[in-house]
Amino acid sequence: MKAVTILSGGMDSTTLAFAISSQHGGDEEGAIDQHFLSFNYGQKHKKELLCAAQIAKLLQCKHDIIDLSSVAPLLKGSALTDSQEVTMPEGFYAEENMRLTVVPNRNAMMLSIAWAVAIGEKADYVYYGAHAGDHYIYPDCRQEFVEQLSEAFFLGTYGLQDTVEFGKPQAIIAPFINIDKTEILKRGLKMGVPYELTWTCYKGGEVACGVCGSCCERLHSFYLNGVEDPLPYADRTSWKKAVEEHTGSSL
Amino acid sequence: MKAVTILSGGMDSTTLAFAISSQHGGDEEGAIDQHFLSFNYGQKHKKELLCAAQIAKLLQCKHDIIDLSSVAPLLKGSALTDSQEVTMPEGFYAEENMRLTVVPNRNAMMLSIAWAVAIGEKADYVYYGAHAGDHYIYPDCRQEFVEQLSEAFFLGTYGLQDTVEFGKPQAIIAPFINIDKTEILKRGLKMGVPYELTWTCYKGGEVACGVCGSCCERLHSFYLNGVEDPLPYADRTSWKKAVEEHTGSSL
Repeated sequence: MKAVTILSGGMDSTTLAFAISSQHGGDEEGAIDQHFLSFNYGQKHKKELLCAAQIAKLLQCKHDIIDLSSVAPLLKGSALTDSQEVTMPEGFYAEENMRLTVVPNRNAMMLSIAWAVAIGEKADYVYYGAHAGDHYIYPDCRQEFVEQLSEAFFLGTYGLQDTVEFGKPQAIIAPFINIDKTEILKRGLKMGVPYELTWTCYKGGEVACGVCGSCCERLHSFYLNGVEDPLPYADRTSWKKAVEEHTGSSL
Repeated sequence: MKAVTILSGGMDSTTLAFAISSQHGGDEEGAIDQHFLSFNYGQKHKKELLCAAQIAKLLQCKHDIIDLSSVAPLLKGSALTDSQEVTMPEGFYAEENMRLTVVPNRNAMMLSIAWAVAIGEKADYVYYGAHAGDHYIYPDCRQEFVEQLSEAFFLGTYGLQDTVEFGKPQAIIAPFINIDKTEILKRGLKMGVPYELTWTCYKGGEVACGVCGSCCERLHSFYLNGVEDPLPYADRTSWKKAVEEHTGSSL
């Protein structure tokens, strides 16, 4: 078995990479050989990509970084890529401000390339780490999207494997699509995922900022798991106030 | 009205670009403002891309070339991108040899990026020039694929336009999906499309070779339209023999 796994270097996809690896690692016959793909889509910083490379090395898997940076200048309106017009949101990871971090059709772009690579590499599946917590903010993290896209790709490459040296990937799989970040972390902690090697912060500072929406969500998840995040932070306390203000209850 | 149109610099997409332009050009209200996208996916030559730039200039539309060349080394098995392992097929444009020119999931990759750009540019539609003649060779040139992918992208970006400065593209449109190259050419000739500015040959020589599958198909289409192809060819006669051999009837 072979899989192409999208690995951003963040918590979710790293946990996914370890889950696939540990689930099948002990059994020769059921082992899944992963080929990791990371994407440079013009993020403001490249810390995640460096993390992804380290994770891939640790898991002894092939890793390629796909350069989509020529697309970035054409994607307007996202705080993740368009530094001049949109300001990175801070505080609680809620719909109203985190919508600014949407990169339109990002998952479709990454998955279409992952599917093409899966055909070339004769992989059976394409994995990615979309999860339930993102459903309301990112429409491309929903099950119906994954299914629809998977069918489209299957149709669009159907028959290729009959006459040329192509593989026949079966589907896009998003195993975390019905669980949230706290549950993903719970599973990851059980597997001993080295979260100190992952990067979540939307900013690219020396250490994670602790105040952007993404840092707040990460620190909150660790808190709910009763574990201290091994990553250094510039500010390790402000997230609580942001969450309390948003939810109206004290932690 | 605004559209993102995929323009390869070949006959089909150039005819499409002119069709959209001339259909709506005379009427201010119905005019479609086109933004052309071309893709460098590791083609063995870049002649098509130079042609696309010329066409865009002629039509006075925006044009961007998206660099997907980092994907190319991961796509195995295609004669269009993988020069070391697969030899470019010659002769009649038939299923058995032209399958080698498939770039797996190519249209899905290009369309996912075009859709992302359409959102950023607030375009209403994404156009591409897939046509009926390619159905049996390229599974991503079929109507059911276009519809399925269009729905997936719509789902994957649904709701974005409500809160941030994103557009809401309605669908991927492939107006030539039910006609073949000869019919496309017929329409293009009526519109006065400057085919001397397009490039079809799979090879990147000084002039078109006239013997690759793509040249044979182009020359055959011009022949069926009773018009001489304005493009210079290294060999302007061999295609006939190839077609006659394949069809068993003389031209």
